[in-house]
Amino acid sequence: MADHNALPLVILAEKFASLPGIGMKSAQRLAYHVMSMDDEAVEEFAQALLDAKKNVHKCKCCQNLTEKELCPICSDDERDRRIICVVESPKDVTAFERTREYNGVYHVLHGLLSPMDGITPDKLSIRELLARVGDGSVQEVIMATNPTVEGDATALYIANLLKPLGIRVTRLAFGLPVGGILEYADEVTLYKALENRNNM
Amino acid sequence: MADHNALPLVILAEKFASLPGIGMKSAQRLAYHVMSMDDEAVEEFAQALLDAKKNVHKCKCCQNLTEKELCPICSDDERDRRIICVVESPKDVTAFERTREYNGVYHVLHGLLSPMDGITPDKLSIRELLARVGDGSVQEVIMATNPTVEGDATALYIANLLKPLGIRVTRLAFGLPVGGILEYADEVTLYKALENRNNM
Repeated sequence: MADHNALPLVILAEKFASLPGIGMKSAQRLAYHVMSMDDEAVEEFAQALLDAKKNVHKCKCCQNLTEKELCPICSDDERDRRIICVVESPKDVTAFERTREYNGVYHVLHGLLSPMDGITPDKLSIRELLARVGDGSVQEVIMATNPTVEGDATALYIANLLKPLGIRVTRLAFGLPVGGILEYADEVTLYKALENRNNM
Repeated sequence: MADHNALPLVILAEKFASLPGIGMKSAQRLAYHVMSMDDEAVEEFAQALLDAKKNVHKCKCCQNLTEKELCPICSDDERDRRIICVVESPKDVTAFERTREYNGVYHVLHGLLSPMDGITPDKLSIRELLARVGDGSVQEVIMATNPTVEGDATALYIANLLKPLGIRVTRLAFGLPVGGILEYADEVTLYKALENRNNM
């Protein structure tokens, strides 16, 4: 924005532009949009930012984001604490919960190993995972990280830490997506689908 | 977001999703991003929202957004007040200022006529424009709205109000964009370029 623009608008646009996936043009558009909002709506937005930052923190058990000490899943007595599904981020928990099929608990790593970007094991909540499985009550840990280089490396790293403890470590199945068309599947997916074929 | 998500996060995501061009998935991602920001950065963001809304208002002359009573362009003695460039929104002022070729002043309509969407002439700052040209010092009004149905209709509507006052009303030239390739120009643009051809 050129210097003839009102400074508070320039500052606001810069704040929007600092968010991931929002370029300077969109940020400017969003700043103008804020000007057209009601005073009350803008105050609610500002308050929502402060509230989320102030009141939301990591669950002391699974590390998912929550406003309580223990998240609703960890404090739910009906969940099976013997199975832990290890995921990269809170949105993966949301994805699994949508299936309504999983009744175990979760552990959120808050990232994937990527030594090149400085994300070493101590940056993830791996220590907290080891503490959870330490008491011997956990029977299975499902590594549910993405099927990417970082996701696979993180799954392998954690599996190697857990196996000596006598815990069953599993990995999500990879294959054709349901409703997918064979012709459009990439080679690696097709190879995984072939390799992991099941009896009918 | 499912109900196992922390409420403040759900609320923040909804605020982001209420902005133009941000869907629920992106809004959720932005809300998680806020959680990873420093306390200070989040407070600055919230303050930027409040400051922009509180301190920025319309310039009493050209209606552009500014934090002063008169915007920097209207209060600049070196600008030629005899020429007014009428634009749809503040970002169009930014676009013209970037050319560094225009030395007149502006008038921001804050919208385009669109009776179907309830945007009638009284919703735009047309009354303020007529007040500005009322003293007879303005020689030319350049209609610089977009070459769209609404832009053309708005330009025509305002031109018909101004012409009886003896003011020269002009419209931006339409033709091939500089650096454009003739083969890829749409028919209307090409027709306009042919119609408005100049002597060499």
